[in-house]
Amino acid sequence: MKVTLRTDVLTNNNKAAEFNRELFLNTKTLVINLMSSPGAGKTTLLEETVRALSGQYRIAVIEGDLATEKDAERIRAMGAKAVQINTHGGCHLDARMIAAALGEIDLEEVDLLFIENVGNLVCPSGYDLGQHHKVAVLSVPEGNDKIPKYPQMFMRTELVLLNKIDLLPYLDFSVEEARKDLMEINPESHLFPLSARTKEGLREWFTWTEEAFAKCVKR
Amino acid sequence: MKVTLRTDVLTNNNKAAEFNRELFLNTKTLVINLMSSPGAGKTTLLEETVRALSGQYRIAVIEGDLATEKDAERIRAMGAKAVQINTHGGCHLDARMIAAALGEIDLEEVDLLFIENVGNLVCPSGYDLGQHHKVAVLSVPEGNDKIPKYPQMFMRTELVLLNKIDLLPYLDFSVEEARKDLMEINPESHLFPLSARTKEGLREWFTWTEEAFAKCVKR
Repeated sequence: MKVTLRTDVLTNNNKAAEFNRELFLNTKTLVINLMSSPGAGKTTLLEETVRALSGQYRIAVIEGDLATEKDAERIRAMGAKAVQINTHGGCHLDARMIAAALGEIDLEEVDLLFIENVGNLVCPSGYDLGQHHKVAVLSVPEGNDKIPKYPQMFMRTELVLLNKIDLLPYLDFSVEEARKDLMEINPESHLFPLSARTKEGLREWFTWTEEAFAKCVKR
Repeated sequence: MKVTLRTDVLTNNNKAAEFNRELFLNTKTLVINLMSSPGAGKTTLLEETVRALSGQYRIAVIEGDLATEKDAERIRAMGAKAVQINTHGGCHLDARMIAAALGEIDLEEVDLLFIENVGNLVCPSGYDLGQHHKVAVLSVPEGNDKIPKYPQMFMRTELVLLNKIDLLPYLDFSVEEARKDLMEINPESHLFPLSARTKEGLREWFTWTEEAFAKCVKR
């Protein structure tokens, strides 16, 4: 299926998001927009997700970065399709960039599409990309104050993957305090503690993704 | 000394930056704009800086965050003057916010003014606040790919404080690779490996600050 962009899609973020959403719906592609600070571990998490789920699902990834093709190369090395978007200084992806990147992906051949946003705990949360789900990654070394200090991100996401729990023994971080802070800001959200490096806790995230896909296909 | 703002200062970032710069020059206040990802350890580093240098220097801090007064409270607990700016979703400080905050600080009574920018490796680097120096904090858990992936930040700063080196034994991070990547992007910059938590390496940063202050006073 070849995607053709109308002019209004390229000039208006919300129209582009609707265009993307319709496309994802029609092709029964589950789309997850992953957001976090730089270095929270989104790419490593996606590498492990591709490794675990690519037997049952056809996976593609759109990578957003200011510069370099590094992240897309890491995903391709895991055997998944990856398209790199370079924002050249822009602090977030927008729906128009996604619409343009979709020209390089045949969604009929994709079950799960992950969008790895630019590493930034502020800007990406305000932009609808047309995704089904917005997921935040927070990492233990960032500290316990991040949820109250960046409330918009945690209010606008429905799941928080607390990464790098293998570093808990070396840092002052309370998982319970993080959960309490999250529940105060967004009682509908969930916190999954995990480590993409040691693979501890990843199963809960994979199950969540599989259930989300099942719901998306049934619609 | 009471600061009075002209209208043009409040409407134009560069005019506000010039206004601030003149004020810093006239009062012989050394001003350092600290930038990093969320959770890289800027506030802990400032706590230790206040602890080490407040015997010889009068220190004030302007704290930039989307929400909460948490960081200003941490600095006040160390005995330094701190003014909190809440950007309510804004991803960086601008010179107008600084000009407004200066109304709460008597610069005649301040030798060192640190501006802790919003935790963000993208947006803050493009805004002149009128500071003498722009310094980036990078932390070991963020990983080795951050310098090439966020080139604007590392091109526009003259010093990188590589924090959390106490975590080096538990992570795959090469200080030498970070230094090599930095030199490629910005050969004039410097990399100081340190840990605000264990205090290892902090002396080099304190000496750099003291020398910068000596130059600023001589001007």
